[in-house]
Amino acid sequence: MSLLHDKFSKIGVDNAPGQEVRQHIGEIRFRGKEIPGKPVDFSHGDVNAFEPIPGSLDEFTAGVRRGGEQAYTEYRGGSSIRLDLAAKLTRFSGAAVSADKGLIITPGTQGALFLAIGSTVARGDKVAIVEPDYFANRKLVQFFEGEVIPIQIDYLGTSEYAGLDLTQLEDAFKAGVRLFLFSNPNNPAGVIYSPAEIRAIAGLAQKYGATVIVDQLYSRLLYEGKTYTHLCTMDIDPENILTIIGPSKLESLSGYRLGVAFGSSKIIDRMEKLQAIVSLRAAGYSQAVLKTWFAEPAGWLDKRIVLHKAIRDDLLKILRSVEGLAVRVPEAGSYLFPRIPALAVTIQEFVKFLRLQAGVTVTPGTEFGSHFTDSFRLNLSQDHEAAVQAIERAVKLIERYRQ
Amino acid sequence: MSLLHDKFSKIGVDNAPGQEVRQHIGEIRFRGKEIPGKPVDFSHGDVNAFEPIPGSLDEFTAGVRRGGEQAYTEYRGGSSIRLDLAAKLTRFSGAAVSADKGLIITPGTQGALFLAIGSTVARGDKVAIVEPDYFANRKLVQFFEGEVIPIQIDYLGTSEYAGLDLTQLEDAFKAGVRLFLFSNPNNPAGVIYSPAEIRAIAGLAQKYGATVIVDQLYSRLLYEGKTYTHLCTMDIDPENILTIIGPSKLESLSGYRLGVAFGSSKIIDRMEKLQAIVSLRAAGYSQAVLKTWFAEPAGWLDKRIVLHKAIRDDLLKILRSVEGLAVRVPEAGSYLFPRIPALAVTIQEFVKFLRLQAGVTVTPGTEFGSHFTDSFRLNLSQDHEAAVQAIERAVKLIERYRQ
Repeated sequence: MSLLHDKFSKIGVDNAPGQEVRQHIGEIRFRGKEIPGKPVDFSHGDVNAFEPIPGSLDEFTAGVRRGGEQAYTEYRGGSSIRLDLAAKLTRFSGAAVSADKGLIITPGTQGALFLAIGSTVARGDKVAIVEPDYFANRKLVQFFEGEVIPIQIDYLGTSEYAGLDLTQLEDAFKAGVRLFLFSNPNNPAGVIYSPAEIRAIAGLAQKYGATVIVDQLYSRLLYEGKTYTHLCTMDIDPENILTIIGPSKLESLSGYRLGVAFGSSKIIDRMEKLQAIVSLRAAGYSQAVLKTWFAEPAGWLDKRIVLHKAIRDDLLKILRSVEGLAVRVPEAGSYLFPRIPALAVTIQEFVKFLRLQAGVTVTPGTEFGSHFTDSFRLNLSQDHEAAVQAIERAVKLIERYRQ
Repeated sequence: MSLLHDKFSKIGVDNAPGQEVRQHIGEIRFRGKEIPGKPVDFSHGDVNAFEPIPGSLDEFTAGVRRGGEQAYTEYRGGSSIRLDLAAKLTRFSGAAVSADKGLIITPGTQGALFLAIGSTVARGDKVAIVEPDYFANRKLVQFFEGEVIPIQIDYLGTSEYAGLDLTQLEDAFKAGVRLFLFSNPNNPAGVIYSPAEIRAIAGLAQKYGATVIVDQLYSRLLYEGKTYTHLCTMDIDPENILTIIGPSKLESLSGYRLGVAFGSSKIIDRMEKLQAIVSLRAAGYSQAVLKTWFAEPAGWLDKRIVLHKAIRDDLLKILRSVEGLAVRVPEAGSYLFPRIPALAVTIQEFVKFLRLQAGVTVTPGTEFGSHFTDSFRLNLSQDHEAAVQAIERAVKLIERYRQ
């Protein structure tokens, strides 16, 4: 059992978003008293503040009424829903998406990531992963016994690009890496990769025959004036590209567990085989809800982005009042990833104090890479007023625990 | 990629239930013409003929209205739903189920099986598996690079027990097997293991310190007068037992994708860690539907079992008119697994002819063990009249392709 023990020790969930209630509290030496206020859970979005796409429950109900054909779809998802999705994703991405061969519906984008990594990583394979990036990326590679090769971005930078270290990426390919996995926009930092960076990634992948999996979960949530470059439109063997996307915090459909992967038919064939033994399919009735996605009422999405930007800007203003704190203005996505000043306690302890003393739940930076011991992640999809007050409390605690 | 190629070649889905539409048809030499009739898909249940538990959609809708707390549950499932389930499963099984430590909600029982095998099987581990048994069991062990040790049951026998080969099972334990996985009632044959067999399995597992995973998906669908023995009530280290159950064809909740595993807290802890990277959680809103399970209206379940029995008996009568066909009377569950007489074509070909010439979809026996080349599986949860006519067509085709 030692192989399993080792495997599972690497994929701990104690600090994962939403799992805080299961933490063993133990003995804690608080500084000062509780700071009262409405609790805010920044580890994920608040679907009460930002409700699901209008009509989503109606589509679900219509799916239930359709009965068997909706309950038991092909493992890759119902064919009429895939047809609709392929047309929408072709329009969105600018690359032709095949409903029959090149698309799979999954239980959330987490499901898509798991199936994609399970279909491309064998033990001993070297996999390049950005740091910081979505916390599950590293755990997935480790679960399948791959070796993580970290690639840095300049996630605190102020320029109009991610600052991906292309030399490091090429060195990784030279050293045998055949898979590069990254999120664009970056989760947690909200950085969008520039057109030049996306072109460079495609060029290197093509040169070394490598596969690229890009997680575009937040690629619809672009702040004012920002543009986005889809990797799948680059000049590269389409069988070596897989794009993952799904309704995110922006669309608030998390409760239905829906995601999509499109691109390489070879990888998607394997993903379907794996899905057959993992969970058969994304919940049949839920799949029907995808009809509302990319078909939101006129102006609905824009309004939501404006509301997110207002929260983003207010939280940034408060955070930047803290001496020694650094944080990038996210260009996209619903996260902030501040680097806080040196504290007298560890980030794990501080995150616990935040929750227990101030009712503020955040995700420690170490989930996004082991050396982010001075950062935490905040999700912006919250009740605006409650979020502002919560961050004011967080700032007070930073001062209280400052080194 | 050859390790992956090998892995994925073992988990093919071409003949998996529901995937028939993706088969490449190729050149086919039919005997005779099509036999017209209403198509019936016996590869799974017909939720139009047997509708979901009354009130299930209402509970889902109430879940959506509750919003965030229902959308983002702990990975192991919402705590109030686990509390409710633990009480119901304690009553049902007769063993104390802990809502906090000993229960996880999963995306279907398929999800539970995947998480359980991923949490207990490391590469090279020997795993004992019954033949015939649920087709994914073998594929799961192979995906995690375990070695399958087949254990026979007398699945065509007429006695009041499964005829599990206990000598073979003990030999397997002696040879180093530390995990035994089986479904009770058996899927596909509908056999219930006798009290003596369950006691013997528990005794052997305890003697060799082995873990037992029992898939009880159909344990509520017992035909008239049959009784059932829960492995989890036996005298054995409870940390070495995991029970999997979920709403099955009987309850028709497949479209919501729900399953449950209960028992060993050690295994469930790992399953939750794995769930965190596989799909985060069973769809949050769907979890709310579990409130209707084990809380069906009075008489609803009994009536449904009576209807299943009537279909079972009518199909058995027609099948038994075929010379050389053998089939057991299922004691439980919603499947029949007839062994048909020798044909002039392979079982894969015959299953294809059945679908294309007679509109009858079944699952070939080879999905349940490579040597079941003379069998197929039928799901009974169908429109009664259509099922009868479909099996009459199937019988005609058996005669047409007889050797």
